[in-house]
Amino acid sequence: DPSLKVFTLNSNKGLAHEITEHIGVPMGKSSVTRFSDGEVQINIEESIRGCDVYLIQSTSAPANEHIMELLIMIDALKRASARTINVVLPYYGYARQDRKARAREPITAKLVANLITTAGATRVLTLDLHATQIQGFFDIPVDQLMGVPILADYFSEKQLDDIVIVSPDHGGVVRARKMADRLKAPIAIIDKRRPKPNVSEVMNIVGNIEGKTAIIIDDIIDTAGTITLAANALVEHGAKEVYACCTHPVLSGPAMERINNSKIKELVVTNSIVLEDEKKSEKVTELSVAALMGEAIIRVHEHASVSTLFD
Amino acid sequence: DPSLKVFTLNSNKGLAHEITEHIGVPMGKSSVTRFSDGEVQINIEESIRGCDVYLIQSTSAPANEHIMELLIMIDALKRASARTINVVLPYYGYARQDRKARAREPITAKLVANLITTAGATRVLTLDLHATQIQGFFDIPVDQLMGVPILADYFSEKQLDDIVIVSPDHGGVVRARKMADRLKAPIAIIDKRRPKPNVSEVMNIVGNIEGKTAIIIDDIIDTAGTITLAANALVEHGAKEVYACCTHPVLSGPAMERINNSKIKELVVTNSIVLEDEKKSEKVTELSVAALMGEAIIRVHEHASVSTLFD
Ligand SMILES: Nc1ncnc2c1ncn2[C@@H]1O[C@H](COP(=O)(O)O)[C@@H](O)[C@H]1O
Ligand SMILES: Nc1ncnc2c1ncn2[C@@H]1O[C@H](COP(=O)(O)O)[C@@H](O)[C@H]1O
Repeated sequence: DPSLKVFTLNSNKGLAHEITEHIGVPMGKSSVTRFSDGEVQINIEESIRGCDVYLIQSTSAPANEHIMELLIMIDALKRASARTINVVLPYYGYARQDRKARAREPITAKLVANLITTAGATRVLTLDLHATQIQGFFDIPVDQLMGVPILADYFSEKQLDDIVIVSPDHGGVVRARKMADRLKAPIAIIDKRRPKPNVSEVMNIVGNIEGKTAIIIDDIIDTAGTITLAANALVEHGAKEVYACCTHPVLSGPAMERINNSKIKELVVTNSIVLEDEKKSEKVTELSVAALMGEAIIRVHEHASVSTLFD
Repeated sequence: DPSLKVFTLNSNKGLAHEITEHIGVPMGKSSVTRFSDGEVQINIEESIRGCDVYLIQSTSAPANEHIMELLIMIDALKRASARTINVVLPYYGYARQDRKARAREPITAKLVANLITTAGATRVLTLDLHATQIQGFFDIPVDQLMGVPILADYFSEKQLDDIVIVSPDHGGVVRARKMADRLKAPIAIIDKRRPKPNVSEVMNIVGNIEGKTAIIIDDIIDTAGTITLAANALVEHGAKEVYACCTHPVLSGPAMERINNSKIKELVVTNSIVLEDEKKSEKVTELSVAALMGEAIIRVHEHASVSTLFD
């Protein structure tokens, strides 16, 4: 279908090329470079007049650079008369700033939604939003894909015995439950508590993990503080071994050191965010979301349902 | 007046503090830091409910970082119930991307105007826009200040003999004319021509410069290619000595090397953009726009005219 065009920006070109291969279309020709002073220079090198454009960019670190690249490209596509501009965000940056936790804070996740819309996007396709409420920050259609099936399939193939799916906090229980249903396993929850003010947190475990293989699941692993403490607590409380997995490997600051020094046997992530060389480790396994996202693009383009992708 | 609050972001804190000193108000308390993954974290540390807030930020390099800081702070101010949000932009980044020079280019100067408005700004106060048309990119009031009086006053005090004001291109003639009027001097224009395709440009000079002290004026000096070639051409054509000046010292890439190796005797700039240490040179003189911008803030706040600042 010549009206379907896929373009990529700079955050995650490897994934973008996997996606175009899956769909069976060439990558749209464009260059995204910098002027001498660092300002973004964009050049779309083929006509897109009347086309349905799918633009792939994760707004991962450096988030501000990747967001501005995205907005400028949307502006260029709009002015070049694209029929629809479908923004494909494997990772939605600033998703954790989704509410005012304290007085006078911004709600940057909402701001970013407004910026994307103002620039001219007509639809958003994304993966595991940190908070599902972010869909409601947009007044354009948002389709959200799920990483759980990909992660679950990987563990299913490993044929581990006697597993338990662990949510690292109460907010992640729904996700853990989905994973557990796919793997026909029970769940457990890490219940962090501060017994008194200024006393360090205690990791309480709700559910039976004794002698079991624990798989902790989260949406984002950033500095890996929570997940490594959780893994160590699980082992102390009698888990046989501990795996961890997440959709979005932010892995900033001390993350890799913590993971490498932790009781985590293997960390399974997706390529929604590029894993730079210094984050590659024997402990880290990367799964691709290209087929999932490629399939979703095909379905959106054919006006078919995306939700059935998870059945 | 307790309803007037001034805040600064990270691009140009020195100028911002000079401005609050000029106005005679304390700097608004806020912190603009980064989370571990590089996302901007903003904290407004005093109530601004019902206040008129003036927010100072140059969207100089790194432009994308500075723009996102600005947008997130505007969002925070809006949600904290500021009465008005007046964005003070000593330098407006992306101003050169103000039209489609080729097919399928973005118009990023317009995009940035839309982003600032969408975030919640109610007014813009800026200095020497690269193109005056950018005022029309906004649907909120824009006041534009002029750097020419500050630059002209500096040269006036130097009491140079027999000067001529030189515009480095035809687009800058209006600015050179304003400078010349203030200094009661004639003007000359550099007329770049390419005699044939693939032959290098020839610097033709329109106007009499023989034996005179030439002062080249531009709004932005970026890589300094044009201005240093112009200076050398002026000397070759008989100018006694050559000064250069501009409002916005972008000075990227080879700029400082070119300036230091050129026939320019002195380069006079303003502090609309911070001059990093590696750009400081015996040849470069920095003038402050703090009094001008501070005065403009006072006038805007008192609903008085800003344009009389240039008389
Ligand atoms: N990039 C970030 N890194 C770490 N914390 C963040 C980031 N963005 C927002 N937050 C904070 O994370 C909290 C929300 O996280 P959560 O409770 O997991 O939804 C809020 O208090 C935010 O201030
Ligand atoms: N940051 C930048 N650095 C250098 N050139 C730019 C920049 N932004 C835009 N341009 C180009 O500068 C030209 C406009 O400059 P001007 O003719 O001086 O208004 C356009 O062709 C733009 O593509």
